[in-house]
Amino acid sequence: MAPITDAYESRAARDAAIIMRRDPIVYTDLTGHIGPGASLEQLEGYKRDGFMLLEGFFPEREVTALLEEVERMASDPAISGREEAICEPGSDTVRSVFKVHEINRVLSRLSRDRRLVNIAKQIVGSDVYVHQSRANLKPGLFGKEFYWHSDFETWHVEDGMPDMRAVSCSILLTDNTVSNGPLMIMPGSHQYFISCIGETPDNHYKASLRKQEYGVPDADSLRFLADQGGIRSMVAPAGSVVFFDCNAMHGSNSNISPYPRSNVFFVYNSIDNTLNRPKYGLNPRPEFIATRDEFITIKPIDPDYLRDVSKSISD
Amino acid sequence: MAPITDAYESRAARDAAIIMRRDPIVYTDLTGHIGPGASLEQLEGYKRDGFMLLEGFFPEREVTALLEEVERMASDPAISGREEAICEPGSDTVRSVFKVHEINRVLSRLSRDRRLVNIAKQIVGSDVYVHQSRANLKPGLFGKEFYWHSDFETWHVEDGMPDMRAVSCSILLTDNTVSNGPLMIMPGSHQYFISCIGETPDNHYKASLRKQEYGVPDADSLRFLADQGGIRSMVAPAGSVVFFDCNAMHGSNSNISPYPRSNVFFVYNSIDNTLNRPKYGLNPRPEFIATRDEFITIKPIDPDYLRDVSKSISD
Repeated sequence: MAPITDAYESRAARDAAIIMRRDPIVYTDLTGHIGPGASLEQLEGYKRDGFMLLEGFFPEREVTALLEEVERMASDPAISGREEAICEPGSDTVRSVFKVHEINRVLSRLSRDRRLVNIAKQIVGSDVYVHQSRANLKPGLFGKEFYWHSDFETWHVEDGMPDMRAVSCSILLTDNTVSNGPLMIMPGSHQYFISCIGETPDNHYKASLRKQEYGVPDADSLRFLADQGGIRSMVAPAGSVVFFDCNAMHGSNSNISPYPRSNVFFVYNSIDNTLNRPKYGLNPRPEFIATRDEFITIKPIDPDYLRDVSKSISD
Repeated sequence: MAPITDAYESRAARDAAIIMRRDPIVYTDLTGHIGPGASLEQLEGYKRDGFMLLEGFFPEREVTALLEEVERMASDPAISGREEAICEPGSDTVRSVFKVHEINRVLSRLSRDRRLVNIAKQIVGSDVYVHQSRANLKPGLFGKEFYWHSDFETWHVEDGMPDMRAVSCSILLTDNTVSNGPLMIMPGSHQYFISCIGETPDNHYKASLRKQEYGVPDADSLRFLADQGGIRSMVAPAGSVVFFDCNAMHGSNSNISPYPRSNVFFVYNSIDNTLNRPKYGLNPRPEFIATRDEFITIKPIDPDYLRDVSKSISD
């Protein structure tokens, strides 16, 4: 059964609502010992803005290795036939591959890279596991926009994630420029939960939510969020990393530039925030979209797995 | 009859082609007296890049007056019912109004504003008339992308414009930011005419070209143009003005930001470059989209028409 009261109820009423966040943002006490990872200043920025953009996080050599690995994986027939691979409509061209932290050796190591995991642990204040992972290859010329959304809204309703205690980590494998539809985040938006317009009670138990229609924030709330904190575009060179709060309002415009955008995306969730049942009697989404039963507490590894590019790809 | 040879043939073959520009870019001799308008440096930049971005061209007071006038016009029922007004699908919300240089008193004066016209005359090296004019109100949240195109390709094929001797002038009435889908131009692209894939000869004389399918540059050519000169986004505050060559490759990404983008757009064509018949036996487009018979050589006026905002709007 769902709990009787839900601080972050969504898709339950005919009206949208703006609800103040109740959960911490950075779970580590910033007045004490913050441990290895991001600096105090970076964590304070994250707390204030809901994200941190770390430019040039990975050296060029490592980024090149990662991009080659993602492209190799996307063109591997053994991958494109899997359920984890999402292809362009009517084509074999792979646009996204889910669960890369398990099905790809290099990206599995990347997900455990101490440099990333330490920061995730600072933010959620505990050990972490990968709630979702993905490699994205957004094509040039016809890259579609991705409308504003809070990941937590979806994860809370569709996956039964209890609290705002997860952080997304996007590793940019190509340059993100003003013109190729970079990730946009509304600073400060993570402080507000936008309860989305929902089904009438009679339809609560419908088994299939269509994303296009549900979990979409309303225009007034988006205007409110943009007015209070503006919009920041994650314009940054390949190798940069963005950590952003699970409730940060984000999206991206289309990409008509001829240049693709590729990234690898990990969602680190606190091991104290594992999934309950989805809301409204929804069926759980597949394990490769939302880790429910097979979660593994991450043991961070040293970054030398990328030291020898050719070795890391061929071994 | 169409001329036997057409330096800029398009939509005639199954293959795309890149053709070197044969026409001048700035028709005024830059080694001599350049007259009033833009500086020599600005004109040389325009010649090289195919555009010039003039930030803060109109003072804030004038921009406010212009934006108010455009918004007033768009909400005027006498305007929204006209053929020149383009509404959102299934709505009375006006997205664009054509022929504003004739149907609106303030914008008519704007089209003759000496500050603008002088620059247009420098570029095309002659007197000018308005080939097309438009006020655009691009909505926030759901502003659609506009795919890459050369205006000249359309004007040459569909309107019978002989030479590359026209300049577009976009007056930004709202801030154009990184996140609200600003105009993007490929610098240097005006040097190349991209001949688009076309109908087979049997279908040449079809009366209706659908824009979605014709006049679309191919992926290889776009990549070539972007590689040679990059992509520049016209990020600039309200009141800025962009002059760009009729053959500059341009477009814009979608606008999911909550902020609309409004501008007024004039195409100044040389009076020595008036329209011939459209290609392929096409019917001429309506006069409000392409001035053919009713062109009037512009007599520049002093900018004092915007001095008293309330007067200029109410008189």
